[in-house]
Amino acid sequence: MLIAEPLQKVIDELSKLPSIGKKTAQRLALHLLKTDVNDVQKLAEALIELKHKLQFCKVCFNISVEEKCAICSNEKRERSIICVVEDAGDILAIEKTNEYRGLYHVLGGALSPLSGIGSENLKIKELISRFSSEKISEVIIALNPDTEGETTAHYLAGLIKPFGIKVTRIARGLPIGSDIEFADEATIGRAVTGRIDI
Amino acid sequence: MLIAEPLQKVIDELSKLPSIGKKTAQRLALHLLKTDVNDVQKLAEALIELKHKLQFCKVCFNISVEEKCAICSNEKRERSIICVVEDAGDILAIEKTNEYRGLYHVLGGALSPLSGIGSENLKIKELISRFSSEKISEVIIALNPDTEGETTAHYLAGLIKPFGIKVTRIARGLPIGSDIEFADEATIGRAVTGRIDI
Repeated sequence: MLIAEPLQKVIDELSKLPSIGKKTAQRLALHLLKTDVNDVQKLAEALIELKHKLQFCKVCFNISVEEKCAICSNEKRERSIICVVEDAGDILAIEKTNEYRGLYHVLGGALSPLSGIGSENLKIKELISRFSSEKISEVIIALNPDTEGETTAHYLAGLIKPFGIKVTRIARGLPIGSDIEFADEATIGRAVTGRIDI
Repeated sequence: MLIAEPLQKVIDELSKLPSIGKKTAQRLALHLLKTDVNDVQKLAEALIELKHKLQFCKVCFNISVEEKCAICSNEKRERSIICVVEDAGDILAIEKTNEYRGLYHVLGGALSPLSGIGSENLKIKELISRFSSEKISEVIIALNPDTEGETTAHYLAGLIKPFGIKVTRIARGLPIGSDIEFADEATIGRAVTGRIDI
């Protein structure tokens, strides 16, 4: 046995995480071995607490301490707009901008036939059912600007429009601070067709 | 509070790990939130076990389950050669080659005045003391081929030679499978000066 078993166990568990391969896992495990025992204990406890104290909001599937998340239960939010995102991490990113004051809905991914993700794997049924229990006037689709995101956006638009709800999509175009000369054709193309009045 | 506290705690603890920044930590934490509770529990337990079941060998400072590591207590190893490495991870890398059957000594780093690492922070005293308790005929220096490693190698050679012990260094040269055309000058230079008879 080359690697001591307790070390191998940590390497195996760490390498199950996304973007962490065997070599990175080994480096992290060796680092933890040199770390103060209290720090490792704190990490282990934080991990256990994460799973026991947090859940997904029963309305929008955002991360939540309570049954209903902080955004869904905040009476000051605009309650007629839902922003549809792929993951709870996207909510954090949008909230940081302070540009949006409406509600959210976490799909849990995007349609991807190649990875076997169909509409039944996403929280689409749950989104549609919100239209009867809440007074929604607009759904903003904020999925990633890739093939899966585009496909899902079109699919969702087809489902939502019959309810008489406005469906919009966040703008695609040149990122702030970028250079037109070095942008890819698809992005420049989108930026031109999506031009707005000044 | 934008991010729920139990999630923020995991992000904070994970971002203390080397090469894991705030964004990666957040992605990993969100992934763990979606992971089965048993898998997270297994990771947490493996981390705690790591610190409680493993220690550093009192002879060579390799990772060990017992007081003396598996290599130091293996009677079949050649006991007259010590290979000096920076970290326990280097032992794993050398052992995988199956080219070396001697003992090891983990320094715990390399001399680096800029990072405040002096000879008193490394296990150099402990290496020297092994020369009186063990019959050593050769010390192989296998430190990283960078400035810190080179400096430390020269410093160690100066300390070891007075004991009448042969000091060698692992070869520097072109990596197997590489291309001379694309190798850097320093590496090619070392490969030429370090040429051997065929």
